[in-house]
Amino acid sequence: MKPIRIGLLGLGVVGGGVWTVLAQNGDEITRRAGRRVEVAAVAVRDVAKARALVGDAVTVTNDGMALALDPDIDIIVELMGGDTLARDCILAAIDQGKHIVTANKALLAVHGNEIFAAAQARGVMVAFEAAVAGGIPIIKAIREGLTANRIQWVAGIINGTTNFILSEMRQRGLPFAEVLAEAQRLGYAEADPTFDIEGVDAAHKLTLLASLAFGIPVQFDKATTEGLPGLASEDILHAARLGYRIKLLGITRRRPDGIELRVHPTLVPEDCLLANVEGAMNAVLVRGDVVGLSMYYGQGAGALPTASAVVADLVDVARLQMADPEHRVPHLAFQPDAMVDIPILPMAEVRSSFYLRLRVDDRPGVLADLARILSGAGISVGSMFQQPHGDRQADIIFLTHEAREGDVDTALQAMQAQPFVRSDVTRLRVENLS
Amino acid sequence: MKPIRIGLLGLGVVGGGVWTVLAQNGDEITRRAGRRVEVAAVAVRDVAKARALVGDAVTVTNDGMALALDPDIDIIVELMGGDTLARDCILAAIDQGKHIVTANKALLAVHGNEIFAAAQARGVMVAFEAAVAGGIPIIKAIREGLTANRIQWVAGIINGTTNFILSEMRQRGLPFAEVLAEAQRLGYAEADPTFDIEGVDAAHKLTLLASLAFGIPVQFDKATTEGLPGLASEDILHAARLGYRIKLLGITRRRPDGIELRVHPTLVPEDCLLANVEGAMNAVLVRGDVVGLSMYYGQGAGALPTASAVVADLVDVARLQMADPEHRVPHLAFQPDAMVDIPILPMAEVRSSFYLRLRVDDRPGVLADLARILSGAGISVGSMFQQPHGDRQADIIFLTHEAREGDVDTALQAMQAQPFVRSDVTRLRVENLS
Repeated sequence: MKPIRIGLLGLGVVGGGVWTVLAQNGDEITRRAGRRVEVAAVAVRDVAKARALVGDAVTVTNDGMALALDPDIDIIVELMGGDTLARDCILAAIDQGKHIVTANKALLAVHGNEIFAAAQARGVMVAFEAAVAGGIPIIKAIREGLTANRIQWVAGIINGTTNFILSEMRQRGLPFAEVLAEAQRLGYAEADPTFDIEGVDAAHKLTLLASLAFGIPVQFDKATTEGLPGLASEDILHAARLGYRIKLLGITRRRPDGIELRVHPTLVPEDCLLANVEGAMNAVLVRGDVVGLSMYYGQGAGALPTASAVVADLVDVARLQMADPEHRVPHLAFQPDAMVDIPILPMAEVRSSFYLRLRVDDRPGVLADLARILSGAGISVGSMFQQPHGDRQADIIFLTHEAREGDVDTALQAMQAQPFVRSDVTRLRVENLS
Repeated sequence: MKPIRIGLLGLGVVGGGVWTVLAQNGDEITRRAGRRVEVAAVAVRDVAKARALVGDAVTVTNDGMALALDPDIDIIVELMGGDTLARDCILAAIDQGKHIVTANKALLAVHGNEIFAAAQARGVMVAFEAAVAGGIPIIKAIREGLTANRIQWVAGIINGTTNFILSEMRQRGLPFAEVLAEAQRLGYAEADPTFDIEGVDAAHKLTLLASLAFGIPVQFDKATTEGLPGLASEDILHAARLGYRIKLLGITRRRPDGIELRVHPTLVPEDCLLANVEGAMNAVLVRGDVVGLSMYYGQGAGALPTASAVVADLVDVARLQMADPEHRVPHLAFQPDAMVDIPILPMAEVRSSFYLRLRVDDRPGVLADLARILSGAGISVGSMFQQPHGDRQADIIFLTHEAREGDVDTALQAMQAQPFVRSDVTRLRVENLS
């Protein structure tokens, strides 16, 4: 059978990985796909550098749009990132009837609805396994493996940089800024790490997972994002004392009145598998009403693991290309005419347990006053401990039972107004994930 | 679109689960599949009991073959187990051009080659996600999610009963027979637990995973199986002291000269995720050359988790039915004409580290003699400790470096022949799974 011919937009870390994988495992891939996957052309900024890698048999250009329009190419693999040229090339390629494989979570989280609708109208596929959790086939698992389930929630460690930082902070007792600087030296964090450490990258991925899990349009603008800066090392220690670890989780959960969509540092019980995912590894926990809990673990970034997902998508497209479009797996797991528009809940309506830490004057009555504020807001306390701090001050740590976040914020304002409270109140969410 | 009509062979634990899931989540499933999945008929031994469950709209019969031949049925879901009637019905249904969904690992591990060939010839699908690791979409992950990889090995906890027994033995310090009896009382183990505790069930599943991973025919008869009876509680303690836990693993690994295919109690490092899979949960670790390590975790048995996999297969078949057969996902992951016939290695050729325990007379020279025997067979020792046992005897525990199993067995024979050795030598395999 005729090879399937791809046009590669971008030959950086992931693009180079795809080139390597197709060269290294071409035979094994053909044994599975039933036809060869062949790079016909690449579009890159630096043509000479790309030419040195791919040799003379492959067209090399710096014009991505030319590939999108080339009738000789079956699939456009978009690995250049960004949301302007990437979007233009993808839409043009779809218009030409080409299938798309992309790892561009930022693009899909923001412009996904437009792109999937265009693909649907033109009868082509847009595959994006590599956009979430690198080599872990989590999109396939949710979209195809768990179709029997009403998914209840998805919670994941979906950013390796921040998980690496948190692992180092805990294991070596170092502060955030110091570990970040080291991660940058080692190449685990970018020179501008904002997207990672502020949780934006995780929120892009979570936005896609939420659509796949619940059959809702992508709506990154509704996601709540809190990052790692501001997380104190001492909270990691206090959490450990309470039996928890702190992870930057993306959580999306179905509630009767809407969907939670949030990324933030989270306390998880230390005997939970997710708590034991260390370093730059990723893991996603899914709870379905039928399957119960399931977890998917692996490398969430890097040239080869991400290329693993890109190439798996290429094989899927090669296999499904001849299926009549309405019988293919739907882009967002649910049939386009079966999407629903459940609201994303505001954070005030989200319920979880909370870890609270504040510094107070160490004198009688303080604890009673704080407890009264919490109970007055309808919040009950699961455990509490106090740690003397000298200067007649002490740190108080509360672990609450599940409460409405809006109520907790009301209580925190009241606490903050007490004359004996000497610090801002640190507030972290706790999830039991069971 | 017209519903897809299924005939259910068997309405026991899993069959009942499928009925429940289709009733409970019918709308959610239709939103994904694009058409309803409808039970048209069931074949059971006890017609009256089934009638009470499914009502009057569904045909109930005790003649499975009638369903296989019924032109009104699109898919046969075989959940009765066994390998005689089940095989006949499946082959007859395939002959009629029906697709098959089955959870019957014993049948496929032994008769899979015949069944897949018949399906291939007739252009129908045989889907079997539920046959391995219950609700975990591990077959989909290997067959579709990791197609870019040359798979190096697969290692899994794929029998919940034995994992429950091992968890209880370790956590409560109880002997095998006592925990087994309790598991039977609680319904976690069958009245005749042979298939589970001897590793046969795990070997059935492993046989299928090996085919999917390496593109080889199913060959259960070549699998090596060692079960739990005979595992002493003290070995669990000694292993813990060395930093390991004991799990019943199915392991299949590609070597230059063939494929390892083996189920046995195995020491795994306690900080390995697989070591921390407790109770009746299942988990499968896959190493691919591109993706690196990935793990899939969830409930490996039970009515609803298994039904989750069955129904996911039904949705897959409903989606792919219109794809021309050569473009569907191949049954065993690789195209039928691309299967290879790499030999399954005899255990003597398998390499791993070993845990050895033996009781000896506690006198000078004994250790030197044992060490000489090991080194004479080319086996080097990683760590060793000795535990006094009274009566001037002691237990000696060795942890070896990686060695050829045939060489270890030679050394064990020589040890066993020493006059100062007072027990059979216990020999357990160690895998580092990294």
